Amino acid sequence: MTDGSPANTSAFPAGIDLRLPIGVFDSGVGGLTVLRALRERLPDERFLYLGDTARLPYGTKSGDSVLRYSIQAAQFLVQRGIKYLVIACNTASSVAVEALRQRFAPIPVIGVIEPGAVAGCASSRSGQIGVIATEGTVQGGAYQQAIGRIRPEFAVVAEPCSLFVSLAEEGWTDGPIVEAIVHRYLDPMFAAHPQLDTLLLGCTHFPLLLEALRAAVDPRVAIVDSAATTAEALAADLARRKLGAPGKFEPAISLMATDGPQRFARVGSRFLGRPVDARQVELVDLVR
Amino acid sequence: MTDGSPANTSAFPAGIDLRLPIGVFDSGVGGLTVLRALRERLPDERFLYLGDTARLPYGTKSGDSVLRYSIQAAQFLVQRGIKYLVIACNTASSVAVEALRQRFAPIPVIGVIEPGAVAGCASSRSGQIGVIATEGTVQGGAYQQAIGRIRPEFAVVAEPCSLFVSLAEEGWTDGPIVEAIVHRYLDPMFAAHPQLDTLLLGCTHFPLLLEALRAAVDPRVAIVDSAATTAEALAADLARRKLGAPGKFEPAISLMATDGPQRFARVGSRFLGRPVDARQVELVDLVR
Repeated sequence: MTDGSPANTSAFPAGIDLRLPIGVFDSGVGGLTVLRALRERLPDERFLYLGDTARLPYGTKSGDSVLRYSIQAAQFLVQRGIKYLVIACNTASSVAVEALRQRFAPIPVIGVIEPGAVAGCASSRSGQIGVIATEGTVQGGAYQQAIGRIRPEFAVVAEPCSLFVSLAEEGWTDGPIVEAIVHRYLDPMFAAHPQLDTLLLGCTHFPLLLEALRAAVDPRVAIVDSAATTAEALAADLARRKLGAPGKFEPAISLMATDGPQRFARVGSRFLGRPVDARQVELVDLVR
Repeated sequence: MTDGSPANTSAFPAGIDLRLPIGVFDSGVGGLTVLRALRERLPDERFLYLGDTARLPYGTKSGDSVLRYSIQAAQFLVQRGIKYLVIACNTASSVAVEALRQRFAPIPVIGVIEPGAVAGCASSRSGQIGVIATEGTVQGGAYQQAIGRIRPEFAVVAEPCSLFVSLAEEGWTDGPIVEAIVHRYLDPMFAAHPQLDTLLLGCTHFPLLLEALRAAVDPRVAIVDSAATTAEALAADLARRKLGAPGKFEPAISLMATDGPQRFARVGSRFLGRPVDARQVELVDLVR
C-alpha cells in the first residue's frame, strides 16, 4: 500500500475497469424488482441482467439443478464482463452464493437472502419474524437459517404464499381478490403468532404486492423487502471494495433472457417499473 | 390379410406385445388429470407417466425448446417400452404431435388438443366456442386452429386464465376466492360473447376447478374437458388399431418425474385423484 489507504478489500488485479457492469441474474422476471432497487440506489452503475426464463421456475427444482443453472448463468455473465455478481433469486441465493464466490473469485458475489435476514433481524423488537416466500424457499429453510445465524434466539415463522407469484405476474396487485388472498395467507399466520413484528418478503415477486400487504397487516408490523435491502448491502460493499463506477454510461441496463423475450418484456415492465421493449431483450442460450 | 379382416391400421410389426404400457408425458403434474381420465376409461391398461418437472412449465418456453423437450420425453418412454404415446400437455401437443408421430412411428401418438377441439365442435349449437387455457396455449392459437380446421365457420374466443393453474396446484378449488377469480376471468368473456354455448378447458389443470366453473356459467353452457375427451379418443383408436390390452397387469400406473418427487407426489395426488407416495415416483434424467 504505497498511498497509505487501508488494505484493498478487492482481490481484483490492479486496474479493474470500474466501468464494467454489475451482473444480475434470476430465473425470470422476479429479479427485475431487485434490479429496480439496485438502479434506484446506484444510478451511476451499469447493469447486465440475465433472466433464465427457459428454465424457470428454480423454486421447484432440486438444489443440484439450481446450482448447475446458477453456475451457467454466472459463467455467462462473467464472460460478458462484470465487476460484481448479484444473485437476484431466492432459490439460487440459498444454494449457490458460496459456490459462485469460490468459482468466480475475485468477482464478489451477493445474494438476496443474507441482506434480507440482516435487515429483518435489525427491524424486529419482539424477536419474532415472519417470512413469506414461495414453497421452495420456505421448505429450503434458507431464511430461517440465515436469521438463526445472526440471532439464534429469534423465532421465525415461514409461510409459503404461492398465489402471490401469479398475482404479481398477472398484474393483479390491488382490489378485493388480492385483499382476500392476502388475508387468507397472512391472517392465520398473525393470529397464531401475535408477537410477529417484522414481515420479510422472501420472494422477488412480492414487492409488487407491497401496498396490499401493508394494508392487510397491523401498521406496527415492519415489512422488509429483500430487494431494497440487497441494494443497500451492494452499495455498502461497492464502496468498501472501491468498486463504484467513476461515472454514468449508457445504456445503463442490458437485459437478456434465455427464452420468450416478448413475455419477459411485457411482464417484466411491471417488475422493473418502466416499459421494456421486447426488441431490447437479447435472447441468449446458456446450454448449447 | 389371410384372415379376411379389414386392413390392419397398426403399422406395428406382427407380435407387438399388447401388454406394453401406454406412455403419457406432461411438463409436470397437470397431465395427471389426463392420466386419471385414461385410467377410468381404460381400466385394463398399464400406464407409464413422465412429468418433466425439471423443466416445467412448458407454456412459457419457445416452440423450439418445447419440441426438443418433447422429443426427449418421448424417446425416454419409447426406450422403456410403450405401445402408444399420449401427450398430456397442451403446449407440447400444440407443437409436437406430428414430429413425434414421424419420429417414433409405428408407435401412435395422440395429443390433447385435437380431441378437445372435436368434442367442442360437436357440442356447440351456436357456433361460438370459448377456450380457457394458459397464456402460452392461448397465444399459440392451437385450439383456435384445430377448431378452425374442423368447423371453419365457428367463432372461437380464447381467454388466458393464468391464476387457475396456481389455484389448482395450491388445492384451492372452491370457496369465495375461487368463485371471485372464476367470475373475474369468465364474466367479461360471456358478457362480450353471449352466444358462447361451449367452454373448452384447454389446460390440464382446469378439471380441478370444474365445479367452480360449472357454478359460474349459465347451465346451458357445455363444459368440455379435454382430459375426458382425450380418453375417449384414445379408447376408440386403441380399439381401431387392435392395440387394447388382453388383460390387467400390476402395477397399473408407474410414475416418473425429472425433479422433486416429493412435490410431484403431494400436488399430484390431487390431480390424479388418489394418494401418491413420493417413494413410488421414480426420479429420472432426460438430459445427461
